Amino acid sequence: MPEIALLQDAVDIVRPLLGQGKVANYIPALAEVNPNKLAIAVTSIDGTTIGAGDYLEPFSIQSISKVFSLTMALNLYQEDEIWSRVGKEPSGHSFNSLVQVELERGKPRNPFINAGALVIADLLQARLSAPKHRMLDKVREISGNSSLCYDKVVAHSEYQASARNAAIAYLMKSFGNFNGDVNTVLKSYFHYCSMRMNCADLSRSMFYLANRGKTLAGKQLITPVQTRQLNALLATSGLYDGAGEFAYRVGMPGKSGVGGGIIAVIPGDMSICVWSPELDNNGNSLAGTAMLEHVCQQLGRSIF
Amino acid sequence: MPEIALLQDAVDIVRPLLGQGKVANYIPALAEVNPNKLAIAVTSIDGTTIGAGDYLEPFSIQSISKVFSLTMALNLYQEDEIWSRVGKEPSGHSFNSLVQVELERGKPRNPFINAGALVIADLLQARLSAPKHRMLDKVREISGNSSLCYDKVVAHSEYQASARNAAIAYLMKSFGNFNGDVNTVLKSYFHYCSMRMNCADLSRSMFYLANRGKTLAGKQLITPVQTRQLNALLATSGLYDGAGEFAYRVGMPGKSGVGGGIIAVIPGDMSICVWSPELDNNGNSLAGTAMLEHVCQQLGRSIF
Amino acid sequence: MPEIALLQDAVDIVRPLLGQGKVANYIPALAEVNPNKLAIAVTSIDGTTIGAGDYLEPFSIQSISKVFSLTMALNLYQEDEIWSRVGKEPSGHSFNSLVQVELERGKPRNPFINAGALVIADLLQARLSAPKHRMLDKVREISGNSSLCYDKVVAHSEYQASARNAAIAYLMKSFGNFNGDVNTVLKSYFHYCSMRMNCADLSRSMFYLANRGKTLAGKQLITPVQTRQLNALLATSGLYDGAGEFAYRVGMPGKSGVGGGIIAVIPGDMSICVWSPELDNNGNSLAGTAMLEHVCQQLGRSIF
Amino acid sequence: MPEIALLQDAVDIVRPLLGQGKVANYIPALAEVNPNKLAIAVTSIDGTTIGAGDYLEPFSIQSISKVFSLTMALNLYQEDEIWSRVGKEPSGHSFNSLVQVELERGKPRNPFINAGALVIADLLQARLSAPKHRMLDKVREISGNSSLCYDKVVAHSEYQASARNAAIAYLMKSFGNFNGDVNTVLKSYFHYCSMRMNCADLSRSMFYLANRGKTLAGKQLITPVQTRQLNALLATSGLYDGAGEFAYRVGMPGKSGVGGGIIAVIPGDMSICVWSPELDNNGNSLAGTAMLEHVCQQLGRSIF
Repeated sequence: MPEIALLQDAVDIVRPLLGQGKVANYIPALAEVNPNKLAIAVTSIDGTTIGAGDYLEPFSIQSISKVFSLTMALNLYQEDEIWSRVGKEPSGHSFNSLVQVELERGKPRNPFINAGALVIADLLQARLSAPKHRMLDKVREISGNSSLCYDKVVAHSEYQASARNAAIAYLMKSFGNFNGDVNTVLKSYFHYCSMRMNCADLSRSMFYLANRGKTLAGKQLITPVQTRQLNALLATSGLYDGAGEFAYRVGMPGKSGVGGGIIAVIPGDMSICVWSPELDNNGNSLAGTAMLEHVCQQLGRSIF
Repeated sequence: MPEIALLQDAVDIVRPLLGQGKVANYIPALAEVNPNKLAIAVTSIDGTTIGAGDYLEPFSIQSISKVFSLTMALNLYQEDEIWSRVGKEPSGHSFNSLVQVELERGKPRNPFINAGALVIADLLQARLSAPKHRMLDKVREISGNSSLCYDKVVAHSEYQASARNAAIAYLMKSFGNFNGDVNTVLKSYFHYCSMRMNCADLSRSMFYLANRGKTLAGKQLITPVQTRQLNALLATSGLYDGAGEFAYRVGMPGKSGVGGGIIAVIPGDMSICVWSPELDNNGNSLAGTAMLEHVCQQLGRSIF
Repeated sequence: MPEIALLQDAVDIVRPLLGQGKVANYIPALAEVNPNKLAIAVTSIDGTTIGAGDYLEPFSIQSISKVFSLTMALNLYQEDEIWSRVGKEPSGHSFNSLVQVELERGKPRNPFINAGALVIADLLQARLSAPKHRMLDKVREISGNSSLCYDKVVAHSEYQASARNAAIAYLMKSFGNFNGDVNTVLKSYFHYCSMRMNCADLSRSMFYLANRGKTLAGKQLITPVQTRQLNALLATSGLYDGAGEFAYRVGMPGKSGVGGGIIAVIPGDMSICVWSPELDNNGNSLAGTAMLEHVCQQLGRSIF
Repeated sequence: MPEIALLQDAVDIVRPLLGQGKVANYIPALAEVNPNKLAIAVTSIDGTTIGAGDYLEPFSIQSISKVFSLTMALNLYQEDEIWSRVGKEPSGHSFNSLVQVELERGKPRNPFINAGALVIADLLQARLSAPKHRMLDKVREISGNSSLCYDKVVAHSEYQASARNAAIAYLMKSFGNFNGDVNTVLKSYFHYCSMRMNCADLSRSMFYLANRGKTLAGKQLITPVQTRQLNALLATSGLYDGAGEFAYRVGMPGKSGVGGGIIAVIPGDMSICVWSPELDNNGNSLAGTAMLEHVCQQLGRSIF
């Protein structure tokens, strides 16, 4: 069980890394974040959450939302309905590449690259009458924080800059692997990404990944087998084109977002969230990864 | 701790899958194997080995040898000397692709695709006076079986059919990432691949991966940190372009070979080897994967 | 100067090829065409037009319209304004590939693949208040046929099936190489493609390519140098991924459309149009190419 | 018919471009050439040769030799034997790319990229007992210069740096499209490339391309149809990935070499050779292209 002192150490030790990464700047709303933020929170298997640094300050969760989307899809669809439309393999390409989508005839490699997450968003849109509201309700529920909101400015701003994601969606549509209206689905997708949560919210939300599918409130969100499978996908594909390095250094299933957050879990043990806005070359939080590495080394814990 | 009955069940349950895969046939020596072989062996953390099916019958370990090669390289080189020349990321391409090697200017994605294993073989060749003998000695030592041998017919046959691997080696040489004589290194590489071992030999050999780097005989082969890192690489890149599916279904770090063998480990718990010559579309043993899946489900064990 | 008998021979000689190609079927309006049509028309440098087969029957000109679009762009823009946004090289990929557009950061290889033609359509949209009307006026003028029309059913049908072209346009937009509203430009683009013309109309329209830029009516549409350049682009990139084979067999600059039409010119000598709806593997009219080959051999004329 | 004054003008006018390109430096023997050389020679259809600048100074013909190789192959093989093994299409990739060779399963796009020229060299090796001697004899014969030689230092130096070409050859061998011993064929190939000729020699040698297949000495080297086809291939694929730009600016079939030479022809009219060692980004002589452009504009001649 980690102590607060260990989390504080993690924050202090990585502080010299500030300045070595780059804040995501493709939309103004993200570019304006204070680059010096450092935060970590851990929710242990007993349900207690501790944190250090700016762990109560909300940030844009961005692609971390892809974990929530896939989880909702697992609740709405049979396994085959999902995996016939999106693969389970690491991509070997950058997160927003079209090359692979074209070569593999419209089937994205996994649900955590943009193409795959758009297919999942398309699935949600098809089965839910108000997917944005349902997503918000769900995340409020599993985090236990009923005040969570979308950041409409970020969502709008991303939509305005969405040409590449539109290209990906239309390309999949041309192969028959995207059914909804592209603009409608993109709007939902960017809302999911724009949610603002702090590290404590996120480590609590992801508790079910460490707890065989049961949330902090004791609800069985997905089955134990689905939880194991979801963790496996996060381990191989959760960190974009840096999944191998992350497994090598940190050794936990995880998911990053360009807002600088990363969630990670040690099944049966704890869920963790770190935040630091500066990103490395693969688009993953630079100091965030280092905090996770430090904690994992100090605890002598990893899945390997 | 698995019982022999569980292993026998695994063998029996997957038998109906025989006939659904394809034996590797690019060289006659491999094509001639009896396709109906099924075998499994487990070495538990207490050091005992049990098996079922044809687990005492030797087969061609092929790419499983890449685990041994990388382990030897870790003994001979500093971390940086290795990872500056080969990456740690899943490839997203088939195991013998040149496309990625060209696009990424001669640096292979990971040490378990052919290109990466050739770089590792090049590293071994540069530091060892008789790499083939040293490899054989090492594997005899860690398996505890001093009668292990290369299959010279297989090694020669692979060398005769080595045009694509030669192309990969020359392409890396053109980028300055291959130093030795291509033919010499290829000969060593194919010898490593041609080693004949049975499932018991292999599960015993891989015991160090489950045992924080210590072999069955109690020798610290690599450090606990290196062991964790090696397992992480196996989890993300050990099954060619089927690593995600394997993690999803089996949930263990593993390495497959086109001879139909797969080794897998649950760190702190056990090392396993399965064998069945017919391969799936990704080149991994079809029934072998199913045996691992069965065992993992029955034991309720995985790393996730 | 070709005689009508030669043209009739061409039609007769290629008739046995009917049935060997495939009519474009991605939209119903094209799929319904009679596959057995064969037509050829030649406009000689003296201004006379002769024809054989179904040369007075109109068909969907499809990508042949890309010659008209580029010509209009040359009238509206400085050279640099065009060639900074689209290249002049053969693509080496199929006509609707996104791979190259992504790898070359949004700049299409040439104005005759879909991506390039969409950039040209974007240029026209930016400078013309009613591009569809202006295009129609222009083609009516240079063909001398004031009754030419768009086929609204075809245009609408293509727009409904335009996901891949939308993907290409959005991808270019993501790289800053597409300025207009994607749907608006697509609608114009599909109108241009939907024009119905017969072989006589088309050979007359393309007369300026054989006549140093002057139309049949004696108007200098583009300069002699521009004409030479346009012919050069047609020779290297006008036949999709079959430009080399076409040059080898036919030896004229040309442009094909999936409606089965092909226009070709021998500068200083004649413009030709052939039509036969069945396409070869590269999407070029199979019997149409053979008619051109026959005429070129019989006349002993080519640009080489 | 061009006058000497025109050629002298061409040399003078392009002199300011010196310094804007880069001499090929991958082997010392090429890097040491004086970068300020400028030369042009023209052989008119009447058989007279005139020149300006350093047109009597020999240089390394490099890839221009690919025209001679293909011509010899046309003498030794049926059409199908050649074109079943190498394509006729522009590549859309750089001259020494492996990507396309892998994607297209070992069949090079055309005989003028390295992969294609290696297949042609493999064909020559299979049918000729002493291909290097036969090539030298042939080029001496058609140039009328019996003192031409290979530059053994260049040939050896290229062979020492041949890893990428070896990779290409082995890759084709892995697909069954390369029969000879790789090293033996590479040695022949580099000898062909190492031939030293001056602009006068080269324009005389290429006279058959302008003269319906007949050499200066009146020998029918290839048929008129083959000549037309060869010119067509040169027009679409002779300038690496700059064929479109070359056609646009110069408007002649041509072939370049990294030694800075370019040959070009106007069928029925003249063959030309220019030389200037500095290359543009596509590997074609920068000032050489400009000289051809000037001559073509001044004469008002091109194939378009």
